[in-house]
Amino acid sequence: MAARPGGRSERVRASVIDATFAELVERGYLGMSVENVANRAGVHKTTVYRRWGTVEGLVADALDHTRDTPWPVPDTGTLVGDLTAIAYEVVDSFADPVRRTVPVAVVAAALMSSAATRAKNDFYGARTAEAAQVVTRAVERGELPATTDAAEVIRLVCGPLYHRVFITGDPIDHGVADRVVRVVVHAAKAGLV
Amino acid sequence: MAARPGGRSERVRASVIDATFAELVERGYLGMSVENVANRAGVHKTTVYRRWGTVEGLVADALDHTRDTPWPVPDTGTLVGDLTAIAYEVVDSFADPVRRTVPVAVVAAALMSSAATRAKNDFYGARTAEAAQVVTRAVERGELPATTDAAEVIRLVCGPLYHRVFITGDPIDHGVADRVVRVVVHAAKAGLV
Repeated sequence: MAARPGGRSERVRASVIDATFAELVERGYLGMSVENVANRAGVHKTTVYRRWGTVEGLVADALDHTRDTPWPVPDTGTLVGDLTAIAYEVVDSFADPVRRTVPVAVVAAALMSSAATRAKNDFYGARTAEAAQVVTRAVERGELPATTDAAEVIRLVCGPLYHRVFITGDPIDHGVADRVVRVVVHAAKAGLV
Repeated sequence: MAARPGGRSERVRASVIDATFAELVERGYLGMSVENVANRAGVHKTTVYRRWGTVEGLVADALDHTRDTPWPVPDTGTLVGDLTAIAYEVVDSFADPVRRTVPVAVVAAALMSSAATRAKNDFYGARTAEAAQVVTRAVERGELPATTDAAEVIRLVCGPLYHRVFITGDPIDHGVADRVVRVVVHAAKAGLV
């Protein structure tokens, strides 16, 4: 048999994580059960109980795994190009009726479980830190002052997009993304971030 | 008996709305029942069923009522002063462990019910439009270009605050609010909003 990274234990984890996200999207956090996740993953339920314990444990592990999955940070050569790529990725993920289901279900789960809240915050914290590399590079190129708070630039770009999706319900599109990038870059160049 | 605005029917509605928010916060949307709301409000359950029908109807009416409740728009004389007052109000409401429970429960309910989503979006749309008066006044005073999108200024100020609360879990405080106000005002003065 050909060697596969991680072997059987990692394959079980991958199946269980896929099943966890699918069940989360289909039934919502409060409708989930360890047994349904095990059935969907084709893994014996005692294995799932032993390794993950509860639905909370399943959701937290699925998010931790996603957090640890490498994410291609854009590198277009300019700050505006990189921030636009990041903002378009947010817009495109919520415009896609299938892709949007996972973050929506995760935010909902986090409002009902402290383990899911911790995992969600860790996930977004890690993604923000990765995306902040584009700001650090812009500082190195002399596009932004050395005092710039790199993570805050990312949060100021993404914040208004998530606010529309989860709070006001206003639509998001590339035009909205372009504007928020212009606003934040203008202020960051003036040393305000 | 002294005359009271609205009379018995309005008093029943006020009790039911108070009970709806209290039950929503205590049990969450999926844990609510018409019967528990009626009991808490001290109103016969057939009255509640007849007038509101379902838990969805109760939550939507409670939000519609809050939306229609006048909200004191700040008027400090300057754009920075007004936007800072609006941003501090968001920060202070989420810093208060009691006050924060209602918006958190409402956002959660909206992720589980389309009637609650509609009512939440209407609520935030109405509040954004009211707050946008401070931007319109700034345009009239000549602080901002006539082309400014007033509602978008409000969304850009509030977006990063809600994003921290509901998405990244990063803390919010007056310093965070001050920075986002500076960023948005600087860009708006340059005609970028």
